[in-house]
Amino acid sequence: MSGTNSERELIAEGPAIILVEPQLGENIGMVARAMANFGLAELRLVNPRDGWPSEKARAAASKADHVIDATKVYETLEEATADLNFVYATTARERYGFKPVRSPVVACQTLQQKFKGGEKTGILFGRERWGLTNEEVALADEIVTFPVNPAFASLNIAQAVLLMSYEWMKCGMEDLSETLFDPVEQKPSTKEQVFGLFEHLEEALDSRGYFHPPAKKPRMIDNLRAVISRRGFSEQEISVFRGVINSLDRFPRQWPRKVVPRQQKATDKAEIEGNDGE
Amino acid sequence: MSGTNSERELIAEGPAIILVEPQLGENIGMVARAMANFGLAELRLVNPRDGWPSEKARAAASKADHVIDATKVYETLEEATADLNFVYATTARERYGFKPVRSPVVACQTLQQKFKGGEKTGILFGRERWGLTNEEVALADEIVTFPVNPAFASLNIAQAVLLMSYEWMKCGMEDLSETLFDPVEQKPSTKEQVFGLFEHLEEALDSRGYFHPPAKKPRMIDNLRAVISRRGFSEQEISVFRGVINSLDRFPRQWPRKVVPRQQKATDKAEIEGNDGE
Repeated sequence: MSGTNSERELIAEGPAIILVEPQLGENIGMVARAMANFGLAELRLVNPRDGWPSEKARAAASKADHVIDATKVYETLEEATADLNFVYATTARERYGFKPVRSPVVACQTLQQKFKGGEKTGILFGRERWGLTNEEVALADEIVTFPVNPAFASLNIAQAVLLMSYEWMKCGMEDLSETLFDPVEQKPSTKEQVFGLFEHLEEALDSRGYFHPPAKKPRMIDNLRAVISRRGFSEQEISVFRGVINSLDRFPRQWPRKVVPRQQKATDKAEIEGNDGE
Repeated sequence: MSGTNSERELIAEGPAIILVEPQLGENIGMVARAMANFGLAELRLVNPRDGWPSEKARAAASKADHVIDATKVYETLEEATADLNFVYATTARERYGFKPVRSPVVACQTLQQKFKGGEKTGILFGRERWGLTNEEVALADEIVTFPVNPAFASLNIAQAVLLMSYEWMKCGMEDLSETLFDPVEQKPSTKEQVFGLFEHLEEALDSRGYFHPPAKKPRMIDNLRAVISRRGFSEQEISVFRGVINSLDRFPRQWPRKVVPRQQKATDKAEIEGNDGE
């Protein structure tokens, strides 16, 4: 994932996003941006209050120009959905009716299946203030609603589009734990490397009288090894740790010690035998 | 899900959302609203540019006052995370480093596990323009990044918070197909009810000479029954259909027929024997 944006794969497919009588250009722009974030590209507007094109929409789209430029405007919802095979209506309110009600996860699985089968699909979003009318919902095949906090259920239009776009992108992924980039790859350390760390550290501590009284030394070593190896080390980490020990062991301080407030001891740790340096 | 908002369950728990040096009050407000939508309540600000409290934030929060009122302000990120056990940093950019990189789904599973285990967690979000510094990312335990369109990867801060809050809510659900409300419950019809519909319709059609030529009547009836019963009917639907047939069958038109453009026939349907009324 290096290089400029223009070298990166631009994903632009999937269901049409249909905004019914959107009021603010800014919201249309934020919808376009949310679509672009998750690879959707086809925006349709039914009767936008302030007309189209809209400079406010373009500004709010933050460079999602490919969505803004391809946006189509219709006079009626019927025209806006005429060429589609299957349409979802989004709503936060319970509706009287027979239509199936789906969660975003289930809806996006259905949309992905239909997409793979060559069907054209769309998702309807209502006006900023009061959503879709019952008549508009009736034109859709199914309803999709978000698993929101019941006491605070109203999503703004760009956020609703963002969530559906995000679920659309996720449903197309084979592995939901996939990420666009990975951490630096690390090789697990071998036991030999771990033992080398132990010995290095223990020798440096021993030379300073850390293992005191001598009778407790074996137990203290066991505890020390348990503490520092509780999670598996990578080769790189072993190398970082050994550098730290080298530095502490070999080189003198170059300025006086500052007073750092001590951490309060956790009771269960206080009982492990070790030298806490006090 | 009836009644006013105040009667509904207010969910307010889960990870703290920590905004590092947010610039615009509007964005802080939209973050608060997104949190409230999905049941998060603890907002922390590190050095907000325009100070706190912010009237712009309160206005943009659209009544998420419980989040705005409880927002805490800190001078440093270290102070803002001091009481937490586990912290995620959100970033859209690849970072050099050893930290595990997680998808939102995996991150929210981890956060839910830690929540159930009594740990306090948080999620860091960077400045509007350029996110978190490497030093700030270094203070977190793990990185979380969104499965965005590689060519259009930049999410605004409220949208990033919305997605994490939404995943948090979803991870706490036992069933991802769950919805807050359901369609009108429908009883599947019995075969007797379906046969009643067939007979009703066929009698009304027969009385008008629909089954023509008579030799083809059995085949035409088979086809008609197949077409109208392809998906299972509910009792309610049978009842609606029978009302429609009654109306067409019994009552005369009250105004002349309008010309409705005919649907183009699909080739595969044209071969099924039926009377298309032409």
